[in-house]
Amino acid sequence: MSEKQELTLEQQKEVDRQLEVLKRGVVEIVPEEDLRKKIEKSILTGKPLKIKLGLDPTAPDIHIGHTVVINKLRQFQDFGHTVQLLMGDFTARVGDPTGKSETRKQLTEENVLENAKTYVQQYGKILDMSKTELHYNSKWLSSLNFSDVVNLAATMTVARMLERDDFSKRYTNNQPISIHEFFYPLMQGYDSVALECDIELGGTDQKFNLLMGRHLQKEYNKPQQVAIMTPLLEGLDGVNKMSKSLGNYIGIDEEPNQIYGKAMSIPDELMLKYFELTTPISVEEIKELEEGIQSGAVHPRDAKMKLARTLVELYHDGQAAEQAEAHFKTVFQQRALPTDIPEADWTGEAEVKIVDLIAELGLVPSKGEGRRMVQQGAVKIDEQKIEDLNQEISVASGMIIQVGKRKFAKIK
Amino acid sequence: MSEKQELTLEQQKEVDRQLEVLKRGVVEIVPEEDLRKKIEKSILTGKPLKIKLGLDPTAPDIHIGHTVVINKLRQFQDFGHTVQLLMGDFTARVGDPTGKSETRKQLTEENVLENAKTYVQQYGKILDMSKTELHYNSKWLSSLNFSDVVNLAATMTVARMLERDDFSKRYTNNQPISIHEFFYPLMQGYDSVALECDIELGGTDQKFNLLMGRHLQKEYNKPQQVAIMTPLLEGLDGVNKMSKSLGNYIGIDEEPNQIYGKAMSIPDELMLKYFELTTPISVEEIKELEEGIQSGAVHPRDAKMKLARTLVELYHDGQAAEQAEAHFKTVFQQRALPTDIPEADWTGEAEVKIVDLIAELGLVPSKGEGRRMVQQGAVKIDEQKIEDLNQEISVASGMIIQVGKRKFAKIK
Repeated sequence: MSEKQELTLEQQKEVDRQLEVLKRGVVEIVPEEDLRKKIEKSILTGKPLKIKLGLDPTAPDIHIGHTVVINKLRQFQDFGHTVQLLMGDFTARVGDPTGKSETRKQLTEENVLENAKTYVQQYGKILDMSKTELHYNSKWLSSLNFSDVVNLAATMTVARMLERDDFSKRYTNNQPISIHEFFYPLMQGYDSVALECDIELGGTDQKFNLLMGRHLQKEYNKPQQVAIMTPLLEGLDGVNKMSKSLGNYIGIDEEPNQIYGKAMSIPDELMLKYFELTTPISVEEIKELEEGIQSGAVHPRDAKMKLARTLVELYHDGQAAEQAEAHFKTVFQQRALPTDIPEADWTGEAEVKIVDLIAELGLVPSKGEGRRMVQQGAVKIDEQKIEDLNQEISVASGMIIQVGKRKFAKIK
Repeated sequence: MSEKQELTLEQQKEVDRQLEVLKRGVVEIVPEEDLRKKIEKSILTGKPLKIKLGLDPTAPDIHIGHTVVINKLRQFQDFGHTVQLLMGDFTARVGDPTGKSETRKQLTEENVLENAKTYVQQYGKILDMSKTELHYNSKWLSSLNFSDVVNLAATMTVARMLERDDFSKRYTNNQPISIHEFFYPLMQGYDSVALECDIELGGTDQKFNLLMGRHLQKEYNKPQQVAIMTPLLEGLDGVNKMSKSLGNYIGIDEEPNQIYGKAMSIPDELMLKYFELTTPISVEEIKELEEGIQSGAVHPRDAKMKLARTLVELYHDGQAAEQAEAHFKTVFQQRALPTDIPEADWTGEAEVKIVDLIAELGLVPSKGEGRRMVQQGAVKIDEQKIEDLNQEISVASGMIIQVGKRKFAKIK
């Protein structure tokens, strides 16, 4: 074993094949050369790599923003590597003793096990759970005593910890950081020591924590993991990271019609990114679509319908996808609510009478005409008829105003 | 018990008497009004107060700088209160995992027990050990698990911890602070929680740690201790805090002649402070001495001999004190080494020939005369004859140069 073994040409090709797939859509690999070395070694020895993903057991409602990284795990799994899902149950059971963090609220052991089941059910839609390891970090963290914790804390300096983006901002702004918060990244890093992971996946916002794993593995004399960072997916609003709390998400457990409808609402510019990161559609096919859209051969709406169909198929099945598409067409398209409603800036008062609103937006030629349209029941806001001329309308972003059959405006 | 009890006039007097003695020589009491309240309560209920002093089990060689605070403990003990000596054995057994701190080098359990014996033996010279409690903080700290530690750490913010003098300096100077170092003050504070102390004593340099005890007792819903800070005693050099590593100390286990001789070497200006902080001599008597010295009725040397005698008597006995004084007189005074050697600044080269040195210091009228004195064996450095004209002398602070019987200089 001490002699350096050479890869056969066949094996060399397999390494390249794996690397090509695994690097697709990834933002950063630290250090990149080690990923190749680890795959080479795995192929030489026949020993699968261990790929860790840390899970926060407090938020088991998975949306397609999460699937970016889960899809990457699936690729590793397809190459025969071992996926290690790590439930941070210890962290969740400790909670945040200061009670200031929502995501660190204290959970009971039952909560955690319940949430784990939900994870298994939801991750099972992408991963082969029969080949997936599920770990709980309470197994090793709860048996550390004070003296072990002192040793763990001794591996990091205060200054380096304060380099983490969020800490650094809070420290600079004189917002309190409790000392125990320093332990969350240390715990996460220590999990990599305990699991002896070869690779840890995470979003780009997890970089500090992923590198902590490398740092601690070195301190504890273990081989260091490679950190692979996947991009953060913007949500339906096209601006913010997809998240449940912002409401701009597509949950993988949602009904077919919901998934389909939400997918149709994403901005055109994001469509190709969604294809790349959230579907198994090949690079080549995505490229074709892109060229088709650019040349005008493919209507963006049709491309988006393909995306919506694919997502429903992924999390339900082909039949559900067809039905969702049919439903979308009848209810949405036939109701003549176009998918490309012009957007309008609203610079007037936040509370306004309906006639003033439609006149200001240019949906009617005059206020008199506006009054007439309202009285006829031809004015709708978000598909609700507005017939009371005196009703105060609270203008909000995303609101759709319709006058007659063909005039629309959507508030920016 | 719910009714507020009133102190009798007799009891009120006892409170005042205790306060007068306990506040003597103390730099700061936080909060001062609580000390009175605690004493009042103790007198009303007959329940002695618990007075904690934390000990570092790595340095068992006690010098009279340490006795400042031990004398204060003795006063509490004389009033019937309970002294709690706290051996920080847990801290010492963990050590400093980064290996950077000398005072935090790792000790075995045997080391600690050995050192504890030395403490008992040495503290026994001042305290009544039969009434003194000895505690080891491993008793409670070693049973804390990771989750307890997270709760402990959650009580403090990073910013407040970085306010501690030494941390703040190091952070500002970009010197690394390991995260585990934050635990030493937390451990010390937690000891006060475990011991339910009423009062903790320490030098003024311990203020942050003493207040940490108050802070943690509050967090853990215990009555808060009062912090009493005693002054730091300057060592024999009259400048730096007395410490073993600087060599400017008088050890309480030293031989009578050593204690006596070292006491005679302290600067006159410090004599009264030494009387106040290291001897049981009464305030009135010290005041008399001070006035005597000012009026010229008392020679400072005689006052200093009284101090030296008192210290030997304290740590040995009256007979040893007499013998040490007799020894000092014969060997030192009769050898005509005066106690008031004029001090000289040395601004020349650090390495110099003996003739150049004595000429420059004005101990001889000319270099020719200097050469003659050296050849006659009349020149001494620190009581060693210098007869080699070519010998390079390394001029050092405190060095005493003597020419003939009456000419002396001491390098500043």
